[in-house]
Amino acid sequence: MLFDQLLKQTGEWLRGTGPEADIVICCRLRLARNVQGFRFISRMDADERTACEQQIRSVILQQRIVPEDRYVSLHETAPLDRKLLVERHLISKEHEDSKHPRGVAIDRDEQTSIMVNEEDHVRLQVFQSGLQLRAAHKVANALDDLLARGLDFAFSPQLGYLTACPTNVGTGLRASVMLHLPALVLTRHIEKVFQAVSKLNLAVRGLHGEGTEASGHFYQISNQVTLGRSDADILANIEQVIPTIVSYERKAREELLRRDRLRMEDRVWRAYGMLRTARIISSEESLMLLSALRMGHHLGILPDIDLQTINELFLNTQPGHLQKLAAHEMEALERDARRAEYIRRKLDGKS
Amino acid sequence: MLFDQLLKQTGEWLRGTGPEADIVICCRLRLARNVQGFRFISRMDADERTACEQQIRSVILQQRIVPEDRYVSLHETAPLDRKLLVERHLISKEHEDSKHPRGVAIDRDEQTSIMVNEEDHVRLQVFQSGLQLRAAHKVANALDDLLARGLDFAFSPQLGYLTACPTNVGTGLRASVMLHLPALVLTRHIEKVFQAVSKLNLAVRGLHGEGTEASGHFYQISNQVTLGRSDADILANIEQVIPTIVSYERKAREELLRRDRLRMEDRVWRAYGMLRTARIISSEESLMLLSALRMGHHLGILPDIDLQTINELFLNTQPGHLQKLAAHEMEALERDARRAEYIRRKLDGKS
Repeated sequence: MLFDQLLKQTGEWLRGTGPEADIVICCRLRLARNVQGFRFISRMDADERTACEQQIRSVILQQRIVPEDRYVSLHETAPLDRKLLVERHLISKEHEDSKHPRGVAIDRDEQTSIMVNEEDHVRLQVFQSGLQLRAAHKVANALDDLLARGLDFAFSPQLGYLTACPTNVGTGLRASVMLHLPALVLTRHIEKVFQAVSKLNLAVRGLHGEGTEASGHFYQISNQVTLGRSDADILANIEQVIPTIVSYERKAREELLRRDRLRMEDRVWRAYGMLRTARIISSEESLMLLSALRMGHHLGILPDIDLQTINELFLNTQPGHLQKLAAHEMEALERDARRAEYIRRKLDGKS
Repeated sequence: MLFDQLLKQTGEWLRGTGPEADIVICCRLRLARNVQGFRFISRMDADERTACEQQIRSVILQQRIVPEDRYVSLHETAPLDRKLLVERHLISKEHEDSKHPRGVAIDRDEQTSIMVNEEDHVRLQVFQSGLQLRAAHKVANALDDLLARGLDFAFSPQLGYLTACPTNVGTGLRASVMLHLPALVLTRHIEKVFQAVSKLNLAVRGLHGEGTEASGHFYQISNQVTLGRSDADILANIEQVIPTIVSYERKAREELLRRDRLRMEDRVWRAYGMLRTARIISSEESLMLLSALRMGHHLGILPDIDLQTINELFLNTQPGHLQKLAAHEMEALERDARRAEYIRRKLDGKS
């Protein structure tokens, strides 16, 4: 039921709206919290883990954060469904793969998800389409307050919130912004941007977070420091740098168009041609081609394709989504053929 | 006038008909002849060259081999028009580039051309679409006889016809067959074929003859030996090997389809997608993509595109043709953009 519903929408992070949506895909705020009286997850035995999950789950339901059918017990969930949640950024890869009792609460718009028994007892995250860090922070705070009504979070007056990994101690906050930076890659200015970013103690990661490649020219920029700083400081630090990167990317796009419009059109149209005709296509290749399409859309090169279609293609061509839509598991080649077929039908307006 | 007429047709060599036309593009027979009383071209002074050309030209017209408006004095012809003739295989690259008085007679169907003052005084060539070496030979012989009515060809009873380069002495005959062998390239069997061919003293060359690359998987196979052998022997030697190569290529295509139909379809459809959408395309790339289209057409993968369209694209996307069609000379980038536009319009059925 829940999974069928999910397949019918793209979720908050891919809504494609909000400020600077041509370049800023979404903002994401994450808070790490642990419940006093329980040890950290890695130290727990099986019974403790069960008890911990049960307690947090019951608070989530009591506080009506989500209705019961939107709390997923992941240890009772099929692997393909768990993969679907990862591809929708609703749970982490680690949360998909671990074995112990654990869950996730997902709201109707996929704007918020609360992972239970991940690295910390509670990991709540809030997405906001476009550049809206403050709005996301407000929602995260409200959610944090709701949870705190039923849970006593481990907090040290000196250090702040206590977390399983020392890198999260303090605010427990990670704020990140997902950016689409194809023109900075094409003009080879992306490395300079990263150097500037790292001087501000910010980290640059790929599409799926820590340790992943920047597939499709998508990058996530987030704070590294959580200790000894307020939430406001952390947000201000990111808010200071993102508009600069956005303006660099926009200038790079304009410059590419001015200097070599034909080559840009060629790049975008060829991507479209490939997507319209290929019979076998890997997820990596489709991501790159869709990235070109997305840029083309925002530059007015491909006026007939709406952003909603491109976003649905981004989401649904991922391996888990493809298999879920086909209602069976598939080997790599079958997936690549099914992906090509799905894309062709979608771009033909047939599905 | 002549050049405008040429632009409206594809000529005999690209007609796409005749036996084994899915693999054998055409046969070409070339006879090298020199006129007694004149020195070889390289030894001549300017006056002799003029006299030689005049004499041969007048015989061609006297014998009504072509009407006057189809004899082209190349030293009075614009560079772009000369390039057009090379791209249509009607004159050699050397004949395009040299400076002295020289010409070419071209019949209405572009089945025959007679180069005057090329490496030899007379180089006559006959094209026949598909695998029809004997038919081409018959036409070449008839033409040779017509010329011999007015010209006394240098002939030694011991050696045969005398030619400027010793490699042509004897029959002066070069018979070649142009093949389209994409599947043998894809299955990596092409080298084995070449080894077998070279053991029979046959040469393998690219699309535009000696020293050119095998662009678009097109290969020309021709005899190397002209001395001490009869025309019949030379033709028999080639006729013995071509059907074998044709059957290898056909088997390779069948095997590729049987083993990996999807990947073949992918290759052909992607080529089509590129041609339909690219905004900049080099002649080398378009040749490769059209090669895939041609194979796809013959395998029934692209049923809606007729061979005539593919052949016109092969011919008209060459640099000279493109510029001639646009009626002005162009730099490389402008050509590549114009080529892409021409292909798109053609495949859209708009030109």
